[in-house]
Amino acid sequence: MSINTIEEELKECFPYTVQWRRHLHENPEPSFEEWDTRKYIVEKLRSFGYTEIEENVGGGGIVTYLRGKNLGSTIAFRADFDALRIEEETGLPFASKNEGVMHACGHDGHTATLLSVAKVMKAHEDELSGSVKFIFQHAEEVLPGGGKSMVEAGVLDDVDAVYGLHLRSPLEFGTVSYCSGYAMAAADFFDITIQGKGGHAAYPSATVDSVVVASYVVNQLQSIISRNKDPKKAGVLTVSTLKAGDGAHNVIADKAVIKGTVRTFDPELRNLIEEKISTMTRHICDAHGAACEVNYTRGYPALFNHEKETALIKSLFESNRKELKIDSTPMRMGGEDFAYFLQEKPGSFFFVHSGNREKGIIYPHHHPKFDFDERAMLVGGQCFMDIIGHYLMIGEGSETEEAYKAAVVD
Amino acid sequence: MSINTIEEELKECFPYTVQWRRHLHENPEPSFEEWDTRKYIVEKLRSFGYTEIEENVGGGGIVTYLRGKNLGSTIAFRADFDALRIEEETGLPFASKNEGVMHACGHDGHTATLLSVAKVMKAHEDELSGSVKFIFQHAEEVLPGGGKSMVEAGVLDDVDAVYGLHLRSPLEFGTVSYCSGYAMAAADFFDITIQGKGGHAAYPSATVDSVVVASYVVNQLQSIISRNKDPKKAGVLTVSTLKAGDGAHNVIADKAVIKGTVRTFDPELRNLIEEKISTMTRHICDAHGAACEVNYTRGYPALFNHEKETALIKSLFESNRKELKIDSTPMRMGGEDFAYFLQEKPGSFFFVHSGNREKGIIYPHHHPKFDFDERAMLVGGQCFMDIIGHYLMIGEGSETEEAYKAAVVD
Amino acid sequence: MSINTIEEELKECFPYTVQWRRHLHENPEPSFEEWDTRKYIVEKLRSFGYTEIEENVGGGGIVTYLRGKNLGSTIAFRADFDALRIEEETGLPFASKNEGVMHACGHDGHTATLLSVAKVMKAHEDELSGSVKFIFQHAEEVLPGGGKSMVEAGVLDDVDAVYGLHLRSPLEFGTVSYCSGYAMAAADFFDITIQGKGGHAAYPSATVDSVVVASYVVNQLQSIISRNKDPKKAGVLTVSTLKAGDGAHNVIADKAVIKGTVRTFDPELRNLIEEKISTMTRHICDAHGAACEVNYTRGYPALFNHEKETALIKSLFESNRKELKIDSTPMRMGGEDFAYFLQEKPGSFFFVHSGNREKGIIYPHHHPKFDFDERAMLVGGQCFMDIIGHYLMIGEGSETEEAYKAAVVD
Amino acid sequence: MSINTIEEELKECFPYTVQWRRHLHENPEPSFEEWDTRKYIVEKLRSFGYTEIEENVGGGGIVTYLRGKNLGSTIAFRADFDALRIEEETGLPFASKNEGVMHACGHDGHTATLLSVAKVMKAHEDELSGSVKFIFQHAEEVLPGGGKSMVEAGVLDDVDAVYGLHLRSPLEFGTVSYCSGYAMAAADFFDITIQGKGGHAAYPSATVDSVVVASYVVNQLQSIISRNKDPKKAGVLTVSTLKAGDGAHNVIADKAVIKGTVRTFDPELRNLIEEKISTMTRHICDAHGAACEVNYTRGYPALFNHEKETALIKSLFESNRKELKIDSTPMRMGGEDFAYFLQEKPGSFFFVHSGNREKGIIYPHHHPKFDFDERAMLVGGQCFMDIIGHYLMIGEGSETEEAYKAAVVD
Repeated sequence: MSINTIEEELKECFPYTVQWRRHLHENPEPSFEEWDTRKYIVEKLRSFGYTEIEENVGGGGIVTYLRGKNLGSTIAFRADFDALRIEEETGLPFASKNEGVMHACGHDGHTATLLSVAKVMKAHEDELSGSVKFIFQHAEEVLPGGGKSMVEAGVLDDVDAVYGLHLRSPLEFGTVSYCSGYAMAAADFFDITIQGKGGHAAYPSATVDSVVVASYVVNQLQSIISRNKDPKKAGVLTVSTLKAGDGAHNVIADKAVIKGTVRTFDPELRNLIEEKISTMTRHICDAHGAACEVNYTRGYPALFNHEKETALIKSLFESNRKELKIDSTPMRMGGEDFAYFLQEKPGSFFFVHSGNREKGIIYPHHHPKFDFDERAMLVGGQCFMDIIGHYLMIGEGSETEEAYKAAVVD
Repeated sequence: MSINTIEEELKECFPYTVQWRRHLHENPEPSFEEWDTRKYIVEKLRSFGYTEIEENVGGGGIVTYLRGKNLGSTIAFRADFDALRIEEETGLPFASKNEGVMHACGHDGHTATLLSVAKVMKAHEDELSGSVKFIFQHAEEVLPGGGKSMVEAGVLDDVDAVYGLHLRSPLEFGTVSYCSGYAMAAADFFDITIQGKGGHAAYPSATVDSVVVASYVVNQLQSIISRNKDPKKAGVLTVSTLKAGDGAHNVIADKAVIKGTVRTFDPELRNLIEEKISTMTRHICDAHGAACEVNYTRGYPALFNHEKETALIKSLFESNRKELKIDSTPMRMGGEDFAYFLQEKPGSFFFVHSGNREKGIIYPHHHPKFDFDERAMLVGGQCFMDIIGHYLMIGEGSETEEAYKAAVVD
Repeated sequence: MSINTIEEELKECFPYTVQWRRHLHENPEPSFEEWDTRKYIVEKLRSFGYTEIEENVGGGGIVTYLRGKNLGSTIAFRADFDALRIEEETGLPFASKNEGVMHACGHDGHTATLLSVAKVMKAHEDELSGSVKFIFQHAEEVLPGGGKSMVEAGVLDDVDAVYGLHLRSPLEFGTVSYCSGYAMAAADFFDITIQGKGGHAAYPSATVDSVVVASYVVNQLQSIISRNKDPKKAGVLTVSTLKAGDGAHNVIADKAVIKGTVRTFDPELRNLIEEKISTMTRHICDAHGAACEVNYTRGYPALFNHEKETALIKSLFESNRKELKIDSTPMRMGGEDFAYFLQEKPGSFFFVHSGNREKGIIYPHHHPKFDFDERAMLVGGQCFMDIIGHYLMIGEGSETEEAYKAAVVD
Repeated sequence: MSINTIEEELKECFPYTVQWRRHLHENPEPSFEEWDTRKYIVEKLRSFGYTEIEENVGGGGIVTYLRGKNLGSTIAFRADFDALRIEEETGLPFASKNEGVMHACGHDGHTATLLSVAKVMKAHEDELSGSVKFIFQHAEEVLPGGGKSMVEAGVLDDVDAVYGLHLRSPLEFGTVSYCSGYAMAAADFFDITIQGKGGHAAYPSATVDSVVVASYVVNQLQSIISRNKDPKKAGVLTVSTLKAGDGAHNVIADKAVIKGTVRTFDPELRNLIEEKISTMTRHICDAHGAACEVNYTRGYPALFNHEKETALIKSLFESNRKELKIDSTPMRMGGEDFAYFLQEKPGSFFFVHSGNREKGIIYPHHHPKFDFDERAMLVGGQCFMDIIGHYLMIGEGSETEEAYKAAVVD
């Protein structure tokens, strides 16, 4: 058997992949409430012949295995399956039946893709030297996420390397992209309440004007990025919401509410910004006689793609996917809880571009009209196959091996 | 007849004054909608014997006259009669029957006071040298106010001097206060909308961050007061409301809304601040690539008490009201549309203190528990009588005259 | 004798007044170093017949007395005699002979004026009911000033009322002006040093950028005036100097120096601003990890003209100086150490306008081309005479007395 | 001949290298005034046997050639030779004899190193396949630098690749470091003059306070980095100097001077920041009624090390310099006009660490006590030899070639 044979089988499976994806899309469930989705995945895996299925891993994930005949590495693939609380506006025939919930980030595609790999490979279990662990993760979209608890539950303990992918619309179909090192940011949140002392707008000296204090805080928070951040490290601090006063013209607002987010890659910078927001806000409020409460909520850590594993997939994809463009992508400020997996084991997270201007697939993730070119699921499955081919079929002298050797020297 | 006789009659009238006030208090009507209140006032005036009653003056005011037998000055007194859209919480037996509407500023008292003067004086019409014009004004609380339109309708054309009073709680009953020159501020309002360009909080460089621009605007508006205002002129600029963002942490707000008020006395300063708010905001928005809309709404002008007329009432009250404390009061930053009357004719606006700590009358105007010591209405009536005595009974060699002559030299 | 006789004598003395003034002008001495000036004044007083001369009062002042024959009040007049460290550019024939020192504030005129009164009145000593104390004060221009120490030395202990005047150029000659209540501001100074941590301009995260911190401080100090100051009280806070960095483009400045001044009338506001500058600066520096030193130096207190005494001189000047315009003047933000005298005893400080456009006397005080119309010295002397006339010649039934009685009722 | 033979000769030459360096160090000349330095270099080159010497290239540079017997590539090495206007404080026996001028950046070492390579290689000219061009550049430290004009004069027209090195103290001797891609920033400068309207500190409303306007400008310039800069691109904007006011407490400063620097790598970001500084400053000044002048001076562009050539030297040094650590170094915010050479031709700029804690060589470049471990010159020469070996001695089957082939695949 060669990787080529398997590819054919994956293509044959594609109509089912599409069918599964559309079922999931039509029946989206929000993070931490994916009851039917989980049942559906388990049923599918059973129908493929999997019996060793762990359910409710880390509070909601599903895990199963391909056990190769020969000894070898264990590699893991992860797909997430939760949807978003967004009202769908695509008008697709398989649009969401659940009001206010939508697969607007492509997790339906991630899951269908991984199911197709699981189905096709099941027939080749005996040919493998090593194991493949399929990880279906719940709740990627909502803190604290399912990834952290699955990793804490030990889902990677027996794993040598872990990989995952994300569809990316509206970047045009036909490219797979990778990013070595930090690829997606740590996304944290802060909430500040500034308590001044309200009063009549005509008598400011009897008050502590929370609007003015808040505006000084917003002004000075800018200096964390412009002065305290090492210019060579990427980082963002955004005040997204500022509310003070109830709309009356003649009342000095006693309270201002500030909300915002911080995006970083470097953990030291993350600590620094968290500390500075708190210290700076407190002192500025002291300067003006206001009180304040500062809450900082850590989101997912930055996603770090390991250099060697990223070089590996680049090389594999370049060798095997001549029909695609394999490109590097700059790091992105958005977050992803696959980061927890990559903190635990080597691996890489790559992107399968899934936009299609001709077909009108031009909306970004989280948009009510978000969609993706379903062929990207086939590409994603092929990429997973390439990785299996490299780790678990090495004995066969595949081209993959050569490509790998040429590119990656320890 | 002497002023003393009349005073006795005013005291006898007091139970009715209280009754009228309580009726008005129980049936408050908001500004520009005082239909029943107007009818009530007209009925009362008719019942006192007045026949020359003008209704709907300047869109809602009521005017009547005492015509003295002999030639002389015409003086006018003004009382306002509109209520506020406040839900009463006093628990008084005569509390408002109209949900959400309340006489929370004492205009019920002003009107009852002036009615009492009209009633008592009617009997003495023949004894007067000159005329008294009673002006009952609608809609003092809401822009553009009834005062402006009544003045524009010519209500002061035949008047030599005009006076008005305001109850003042919770300042303790027993004092009448005056203020020469600017006594109450021009109260203007501004509304600013800053239109940036929203976007994802992690990608600020693709946006124009309206929160940051708004905070810079608020910062710099402070300099209008600290740098552009002549330090010797009183003025306030308050940003009372600042709203940007809808509460999401990860979205850069595309729009910020700022509301505020400006209080001034000096007309040049008023012009300067209006101009600076607009110019400054526009340029700051330009600096950051944001658009903006700035609306400035002029409220009532500053109320200017004429020096001579204020000296007169000080002297009259000091001579005639030995039981009271007659005190000066500093200018106040709140507005009052009696200002229009004093722009047209000489006169003065004075304050009858009406709080009473023992009786629990401790709440400020516009408070849902606002009340006043009803004896203040008697004091107010007496003060009006003193003014009548001075202008229209001079021939009788009253003490008032001496006091006046001693104090006021042209 | 009447005040009229004395006036004639004052006019006869005028050529000498001019001569004395020009001598002083030609020989200016800076504050606290007025050695020859003091000798000159003492000599003059001796030459007029004064023997009871106290020198070095409060560290440098000179005092002498007219002792009336009859009992009566003791009133004091004060003139200051120090010059400024300014290089004169008037080109006058009697311009300063002392390089870098100039009578650029008119103190030469004040002193010559008071000398002329002393000379003329000496001949009338016997006619007085009461005493006149002539106070020649050193060091008005430089903190802590001579006024404070003279008052502390008891110079006003035996005095009932105290008066002083200031020439005022370039306001046109022909007017004397008065101001009841607060007339001149308390003038305080502050010095702030912000200690950041310098470094290479390309590596801000290793530094504490004192320029940025200082700019935040300057920004927020504005809010003391715009928000913490009672809008009805006049007050100024000016940052006059901000220096950080030595001119290099590529070095982050480790230190910023801020200097400024505060002008107030109300003592509570003065305390508030002093406290706020310190608190606010410290907390803002803390917010940014900078250290700071804040020094606040109190200058002269606000000069408060007593109501009764100001009404008195208004009335006296209006009655006696028909050829002049007697006008009120608004309070001024500049300081004057005559404030200490008026804190101790009742009195008033008035202004003799001394500009003359035709003669080219158009420069303000402290300007290198400052000058004054010397006739203002005669006017000033006359004003002092009026005051003497009122207090010490009352027995004679002067017109002054009538005017006073008509105007000032206790 | 092998590279090993040549290395021995380089070591034998080392005492001369040190001697030349010390001569240059003792006789430093500032940028654009390196008259004697140029003569010295030319003399040395002549003494080594070079005859084809171009002087005054691009206004002050010196160029000579090794012409190999066989055809091949032409590679260039560049060394700079200007000194700084810094007063030396090293106390070295060969310290600067020129007051206020010092080789405080190690250019003496760069030049001596390249001279040593020129000397040693001259004897091997015939063995080369291709040519080596030695470029001695004047005026690296002062804008517009000598690099730009030399490149414009065509110094790289006949060159295939160009390399240069910089000593780096106080990083400890024993390491050579490289950086692929952007390695050193574009260093630009700006000068802003804000023209307000001065006046007395007590009368701000008659002025335009340049201190306050300048502080608002500094505040808002921070937002260029925090909001307008793409967070993934490195960039710095530093206000290094802010001066307003002459130290007087009671004068509002009419003018503020701001100086600063901008460091970027990405040319679009560079354009953006230049444009924003100007636009923002102008509009903020307009907001406050101030005028301004903004000058932006572009310094050297960002230095971009070509990927392939950087990989080459990494591989060469790793193979040949086992005794050293070959390490990557992060990009640096400082500028270097070798950038112009790398804009024109492929190549790389590398760093030879030259600190030595034991010997007290612990001061950074541009410090008056700056020094370097002279052995770093030998290391630098060896590195140049490695590059020559690779490009021009390939026929001999050197190890170098193998290393290169293994690492760099077009």
